[in-house]
Amino acid sequence: MSVVLSRRDVDFLLFDWLKAAELTERERYAEHSRETFDAVLDLSETIATERFAPINRLLDANEPVVGEDGKVVLPAELGEALAVYRDSGTPAGVFDADLGGMQLPFTVSQGAFAFFQAASAAAASYPFLSTGNANLLVEHGTPEQVQTYAVPVIEGRWYGTMCLSEPQAGSSLGDITTRAVRQEDGTYRLFGTKMWISGGDHELTENIVHLVLAKVEGAPPGVKGISLFIVPKHLVNEDGSIGERNDVALVGLNHKMGWRGTTNTLLNFGEGLATPGGAAGAVGHLVGDEGQGLAQMFHMMNEARISVGMGAVALGYTGYLHALDYAKTRTQGRIPGAKDPSAPMVPLTAHADVRRMLLAQKSYVEGGLGLLLYCARLIDEQATGADEAARTRAHDLLEVLTPIAKSWPSQWCLAANDLAIQVHGGYGYTRDYAVEQFYRDNRLNPIHEGTHGIQSLDLLGRKVIAGGGAWLATLVETIKATVARAAAADETADYAKQLDARVDRLVEVTGQLWAGGDPAVALANSAVYLEAAGHVVVAWVWLEQLLAVGERHDAFFEGKRAATRYFFAFELPKVDPQLDLLASLDRTVLDLDPASL
Amino acid sequence: MSVVLSRRDVDFLLFDWLKAAELTERERYAEHSRETFDAVLDLSETIATERFAPINRLLDANEPVVGEDGKVVLPAELGEALAVYRDSGTPAGVFDADLGGMQLPFTVSQGAFAFFQAASAAAASYPFLSTGNANLLVEHGTPEQVQTYAVPVIEGRWYGTMCLSEPQAGSSLGDITTRAVRQEDGTYRLFGTKMWISGGDHELTENIVHLVLAKVEGAPPGVKGISLFIVPKHLVNEDGSIGERNDVALVGLNHKMGWRGTTNTLLNFGEGLATPGGAAGAVGHLVGDEGQGLAQMFHMMNEARISVGMGAVALGYTGYLHALDYAKTRTQGRIPGAKDPSAPMVPLTAHADVRRMLLAQKSYVEGGLGLLLYCARLIDEQATGADEAARTRAHDLLEVLTPIAKSWPSQWCLAANDLAIQVHGGYGYTRDYAVEQFYRDNRLNPIHEGTHGIQSLDLLGRKVIAGGGAWLATLVETIKATVARAAAADETADYAKQLDARVDRLVEVTGQLWAGGDPAVALANSAVYLEAAGHVVVAWVWLEQLLAVGERHDAFFEGKRAATRYFFAFELPKVDPQLDLLASLDRTVLDLDPASL
Repeated sequence: MSVVLSRRDVDFLLFDWLKAAELTERERYAEHSRETFDAVLDLSETIATERFAPINRLLDANEPVVGEDGKVVLPAELGEALAVYRDSGTPAGVFDADLGGMQLPFTVSQGAFAFFQAASAAAASYPFLSTGNANLLVEHGTPEQVQTYAVPVIEGRWYGTMCLSEPQAGSSLGDITTRAVRQEDGTYRLFGTKMWISGGDHELTENIVHLVLAKVEGAPPGVKGISLFIVPKHLVNEDGSIGERNDVALVGLNHKMGWRGTTNTLLNFGEGLATPGGAAGAVGHLVGDEGQGLAQMFHMMNEARISVGMGAVALGYTGYLHALDYAKTRTQGRIPGAKDPSAPMVPLTAHADVRRMLLAQKSYVEGGLGLLLYCARLIDEQATGADEAARTRAHDLLEVLTPIAKSWPSQWCLAANDLAIQVHGGYGYTRDYAVEQFYRDNRLNPIHEGTHGIQSLDLLGRKVIAGGGAWLATLVETIKATVARAAAADETADYAKQLDARVDRLVEVTGQLWAGGDPAVALANSAVYLEAAGHVVVAWVWLEQLLAVGERHDAFFEGKRAATRYFFAFELPKVDPQLDLLASLDRTVLDLDPASL
Repeated sequence: MSVVLSRRDVDFLLFDWLKAAELTERERYAEHSRETFDAVLDLSETIATERFAPINRLLDANEPVVGEDGKVVLPAELGEALAVYRDSGTPAGVFDADLGGMQLPFTVSQGAFAFFQAASAAAASYPFLSTGNANLLVEHGTPEQVQTYAVPVIEGRWYGTMCLSEPQAGSSLGDITTRAVRQEDGTYRLFGTKMWISGGDHELTENIVHLVLAKVEGAPPGVKGISLFIVPKHLVNEDGSIGERNDVALVGLNHKMGWRGTTNTLLNFGEGLATPGGAAGAVGHLVGDEGQGLAQMFHMMNEARISVGMGAVALGYTGYLHALDYAKTRTQGRIPGAKDPSAPMVPLTAHADVRRMLLAQKSYVEGGLGLLLYCARLIDEQATGADEAARTRAHDLLEVLTPIAKSWPSQWCLAANDLAIQVHGGYGYTRDYAVEQFYRDNRLNPIHEGTHGIQSLDLLGRKVIAGGGAWLATLVETIKATVARAAAADETADYAKQLDARVDRLVEVTGQLWAGGDPAVALANSAVYLEAAGHVVVAWVWLEQLLAVGERHDAFFEGKRAATRYFFAFELPKVDPQLDLLASLDRTVLDLDPASL
């Protein structure tokens, strides 16, 4: 049985670096202790390793199909694994105790869930989406809505979805056309088509709670007209039991490069498949007020984006561990300069370029894991920080880090998966080795939950200029504090200098980009900005990790030293030409006539 | 029907830039003219577009299986497409007229074959491998061997394979264990297992000619003990008709991420499946002398590697054209700063970041196509250059460019396929869009025919130091000649300066790496060297293209200008931190203890 994720690294990051155990001093987490955190991590690691990882390939090879009765058929093993997960109580992790939750810190919950994401991205997506769904309802729903629709999801009895995209509107949510028609009884009827709905239909649970963005008739155009609705697959009776079938129809399944174990659907709302209450139209319940849909959704977006980033990290990380395992045992060739062709072959790790590929992966995935757990820690801080200043600081940092936390691992931990294949040579390109699937699975992450391009516009077009650059200033101040600590120690002083120079330059370039005040010019090369900022931030995360290592020495800590050295020598300098390009306000892309493409 | 490759670009590169029509002045190509070249290109474009591209997805979705009779079952459409290809006479392209060939220049042949590689990598692989096989036999076989085994392959009646790798020996060919036992009649009997044999078994042709590396009993260890054998699937009677079944057994099919339409096999030689001549053992015919196997194979390696590079370019190129087509028609959102949310959505090309992704693809695939056609032109020059100096110069350039021509497109045209998916958003991640398959197919290219790491050792460990650096000097001299021409024109002078600085630095760093004379130190970061050298070379190819554009202006030529601008602004500067790292003789990877990974 292969290792899905390094528990020692998770523990190091959570407890040595982020001091997660100190969270138990806060009222919300007072019932917890390092022991209960360990128990959650132990349980997650065990279930992920024993129940999720072994079926990951099976789910890939046996995509969902629609049976003759119109129902989605999934491998039985998926339902069994998810039942074990549900019975562990883990879905309730972060929720309030009075909703049946465990009131776990998000930090610990994310660390624990990463094991599932590493073991099987496809299987993990069902609880992943459901948690986000319930989270949104708990935040914005009425107590009755929470009780009726969120609690069964928290208990793992039902699953939930997020229905945002439509065939003609993905990144551009303002252009959705799903209509909601007000009814006399206060409910709405929805009509329209939703695309890319993961978990959109299946028989894994007795009900599915769809959270649907739609426009009430007469609403203003664009994002201001968007409202959020609860649309259950089956209506729910007053006693909480399953009622009539709602008018939500499965139109088709999408067939993707990866994530094949997740049903991904095209759904029609209100096409007349069912006639709840005697009429066609999908019965929906408004969440909050009309027109608040996108704001409500965005309120949860940080957590969703951080979880997507964590999914990318998890896939990259498990791929790295698989490649490492292979490289230590597979023999091939001899090192350059070896003279005796009849000497035994050496392990792959004896080849410098294989070590380079492994160390690069390590720097990406452990850097990514650090970044994502740091962001998770900010979410807890934002919610439970000691005072408003601490909470605001966490909020500001989170805002500016979120697009990076989503995008950077989607790019670099996918690059890690690419290297994991390369370490395996021809074998890695076959479906007999897990790294092949990880690569295909991870390719989704730069797309969903806001593409790379969208994240780059969010970072450069909103986050770093918000409040006159206040959020960016908070990040810079935070990094500078690390730099100051690192400058004081021999081992880290040179890294501190290198990082400091890049942070200063990033701030300077940000100013240069916006100096003219023209968004078209400032944002023309936003993707380059996102990449440069990401590398600066991850270099900082590595320096933080090295400071947490301190004076300790063993193979694990030497690994942290080597990965930091790699990141600063091979990766961080990549930002210099990127920042130069940005500073030049290059117009190549801006002025390009599409006709010449 | 979608465009598989830009014919205008192929024509521009072949005829405007590389002056391929002037080859007809040479004796070998005297029967040809621009018109016959055009006819071959026309025919290839038509067959590729009408017969190969339409079945590409079908081949992906219907992998070969082994039927109950032990025979490989492939979709009938594949055989039909390949029959059209065979009947066109194209397989005989580059071969001598007296072998039934067309004596086409390799340059034109490669340009023509790229259409097939773009239309369906999997389908094209059958003739691709067969051509390489016949090529090798023509070069090294006896006239009788050529007549018996190569001519039917040239005629497209039989297919050929290359059997090098074994399960335990891929990159390390010196460690193969397949044995060849000398027989009294001068033939050999082979015993062993060969892995990753593409086209290793099928019913597409009545015979398959395997070219097999094996060691004659008593041969020295390592590569010096390797010999090359012809091992036909069916023995061949004296009159050329099909004889007894040889002792070559299909053990299994490999299931890959992509290239699913190509049978990729594990073959056993001499396991006793058949008993030709009454005894077990695969009957083989020695090619040339014993112990010459690897040298013979390497003699063909440049062409094979250039063809693999071209395959990577072709997949990247067709992906780019698909993404461009999509981006021009798909609408989404509005440009930054647009105020009216009810205004119609804009085409994807209106978004700067989408233009960036398209222009990046263009710079990779058109740069790659230029590089590969240039190398093909060198192969012709090496064979038919006016005098020995010209032929030597072509040879030296080819030696140093080959690892780059193989690796650079395998990396960057795969990156283009990645961007092509990204331009499509969620749709690009589904198997309904061709770009999804191109990405999976292209992921093979950094692995087969020498991995990225192997190419980097070849470049830095052999090619740039050969003859005291003579080959590298020839490349530098060639690039400097371009720089001198470019320096004289306003439009290109600045590019000339930028390129010149990088070339000088590359030479300097090469010297620094080898100054200590320690291969372990020099080669520790060879992959970084390969990448830096590749970008310098492709920047040169772009400058050459721009010089070939001259004063002409239309959308096509403006596109060349924009892509050159992009490559020099966004790509070439990436080599600076790479060269700095190399110059520092960084030991991070060299000194890394695998235990700390």
